[in-house]
Amino acid sequence: MKNIKSSKQIIILLIAVFVSMASFAQEISRNRGPQVVSPEIAKDNSVTFRLYSENAQSVAVNGSWMNMGETLEMKKGEDGIWTVTTPSIEPSMYHYNFVLDGVRILDPTNPQAMRDGRRYSSTLVIPGEGSEFIEVNDVPHGSLTKVWYDSPTLDLNRRMYVYTPPGYADSDEKYPVLYLLHGGGGDEDAWTSLGRANYILDNLIAAGKAKPMLVVMTNGNPDQTVAISDQKMKSAEETQAGGGPMTMGSKDFPNSIVNDVIPYIEKHYRVLTNKDNRALAGLSMGALQTQITGMNNPELFNYLGVFSIGLQMEFGDTTTDLIKAYDTNLDVLKNNGFKLFYIGVGKEDFVYEGVKLLRAKLDEYDFDYIYNETEGGHTWANWRTYLSDFAPRLFK
Amino acid sequence: MKNIKSSKQIIILLIAVFVSMASFAQEISRNRGPQVVSPEIAKDNSVTFRLYSENAQSVAVNGSWMNMGETLEMKKGEDGIWTVTTPSIEPSMYHYNFVLDGVRILDPTNPQAMRDGRRYSSTLVIPGEGSEFIEVNDVPHGSLTKVWYDSPTLDLNRRMYVYTPPGYADSDEKYPVLYLLHGGGGDEDAWTSLGRANYILDNLIAAGKAKPMLVVMTNGNPDQTVAISDQKMKSAEETQAGGGPMTMGSKDFPNSIVNDVIPYIEKHYRVLTNKDNRALAGLSMGALQTQITGMNNPELFNYLGVFSIGLQMEFGDTTTDLIKAYDTNLDVLKNNGFKLFYIGVGKEDFVYEGVKLLRAKLDEYDFDYIYNETEGGHTWANWRTYLSDFAPRLFK
Repeated sequence: MKNIKSSKQIIILLIAVFVSMASFAQEISRNRGPQVVSPEIAKDNSVTFRLYSENAQSVAVNGSWMNMGETLEMKKGEDGIWTVTTPSIEPSMYHYNFVLDGVRILDPTNPQAMRDGRRYSSTLVIPGEGSEFIEVNDVPHGSLTKVWYDSPTLDLNRRMYVYTPPGYADSDEKYPVLYLLHGGGGDEDAWTSLGRANYILDNLIAAGKAKPMLVVMTNGNPDQTVAISDQKMKSAEETQAGGGPMTMGSKDFPNSIVNDVIPYIEKHYRVLTNKDNRALAGLSMGALQTQITGMNNPELFNYLGVFSIGLQMEFGDTTTDLIKAYDTNLDVLKNNGFKLFYIGVGKEDFVYEGVKLLRAKLDEYDFDYIYNETEGGHTWANWRTYLSDFAPRLFK
Repeated sequence: MKNIKSSKQIIILLIAVFVSMASFAQEISRNRGPQVVSPEIAKDNSVTFRLYSENAQSVAVNGSWMNMGETLEMKKGEDGIWTVTTPSIEPSMYHYNFVLDGVRILDPTNPQAMRDGRRYSSTLVIPGEGSEFIEVNDVPHGSLTKVWYDSPTLDLNRRMYVYTPPGYADSDEKYPVLYLLHGGGGDEDAWTSLGRANYILDNLIAAGKAKPMLVVMTNGNPDQTVAISDQKMKSAEETQAGGGPMTMGSKDFPNSIVNDVIPYIEKHYRVLTNKDNRALAGLSMGALQTQITGMNNPELFNYLGVFSIGLQMEFGDTTTDLIKAYDTNLDVLKNNGFKLFYIGVGKEDFVYEGVKLLRAKLDEYDFDYIYNETEGGHTWANWRTYLSDFAPRLFK
């Protein structure tokens, strides 16, 4: 008995030592005060958020399941813990912030966060049918590599992500490639951090829904070497994210895909190198770049995905030029085995009218396309949905 | 003149449209109120922090250049902007939080942040001699891959990072490998996000100081498939980070390095597969795992790096077993071409006494080692320094 007792004491001592070590080992300190649980997802998919602050004047939640600009006020208990419980939320992936005395902050007890341009939000995944396809499930996972490549077209050495599917490292097979472009204000991190593209592909491939493929995610801002989160610190003026008019209308980035990115990938990876095995898709700014690249290079891609942009008349010359490219090449594409033109847009998206014009242009040439009109607007929830609907249609 | 004027008007219109699009394209909204610049680094390396909040009761800064627990109060101006300017800060990489009415938050205008376990902090890099080796400089960059691998030893499919040096993809050469382990509370993200290991290697290789090598960064918590930031959301109790006593003392993770990780790397990468071309290093918990793995497998590594831990008597049986392994194998190592035993520790580190015992043990066997005693304590500033001093000594 004596021995057993003393081992127990040793274990308790050890636990005390290690707990103190673990907190030392982490340099970033905890909040003081009571530990709270937040977010807490109930069985009915309502969510309780909590924040401890004795001194705050007001705390609210703003989440991507709410309407734009809407917030939910939190109420302070006698213990200094501010709380609110939402109604039931649809299964999906969301982001949210607390607004503490007017300042947008992360939920300090939630270890999952995402960056959109210069801003961070906490992540909320409501489990269920609308979120299974973006979860890290117990399925084979592809690899995700941050690759630096030379872009003579942009005169930069710059970074992109390359997803290789499960099995790539153990096979001699050659794979098709999806080139996937982010939107204005985003960068090469966006499609994996906000978009979960790698996990979406893992899940689609595991379910037998999508063919194993590479996914190449570039930085669409032609003046950036790397996402702002990895750049040398500069003044605020220097570090504006891309996505301005010169960026979006310019052919520099589309040309760099053709001249720099595709050759790099086809040299360094085991991939199939014909247009039957190349797809190009993008969201918003990336969907404009997809149209510019695809329509001006009809020999390159047999699959195009245009998410949440169309022929936007407000883009002036850029759209005029793009319409010319459609007029020149839609028949060329049709007569040369083009496989899939995919359009996704939300009913409330501010680009909706431009998408109507794009559909009219395709109809004018009797050019087949798949049109996926969803609820909502210009949101990552939609872009994740479009990718998960688009990828299974590729390379078949 | 008329044409010129109207193009100008079109450009102005375009800019207005695109600016509004860029803000739409980013779902995570800006703070309301005046835009402030923070952090602002002056030429004398003093730093001004700013936060806009009309309603806050108190705002302070807490940064890793300060003493533990210290904060710097910010003062509110009539414009609702809270401000403080620090004294001059030594060039290095730091992390900091604002403490807003008692809640630790990110600096909302700083796009660079890092995660340590469950907590996020903003990043501050003071440029100069102490930070050049961790910056993203204009040098060739290696690739960084998140790889999933099977660990039969741990009965998990799990994730690690593999850094391949610049030139790897374009050569047929075989490279040596450094296996690099994180500390308690960390995970496979830690050495690249907090530690900047990939950029440190890029810079050392570009300067001709380190040989091109692979760096393999595992998750040292034997119950985790993947960092908490990528896990399915669970209750707070379920998601405790590893690093408890069972984890740190157990041989499960060291065995998984030997049985699962090294074989995976040597099968899937062009690497040299003898002990002259394998190094193992770690910080804190990872330095304990380094000693356990290295001392029990004297045939595997000719280079060991032990950062910020030693023979800690408070670890009981774990340390007793480790001392036995030293007594059994130090002479074996010495007589079989062992190259480098490297110890790094800060003068104020709470493990300092254990490191003294480790040195005494090595001295007892007249076993050579390099001892780097630095200022400070159990900090990432030290671990980045040790890596940048250790890597150039490898494989030579």
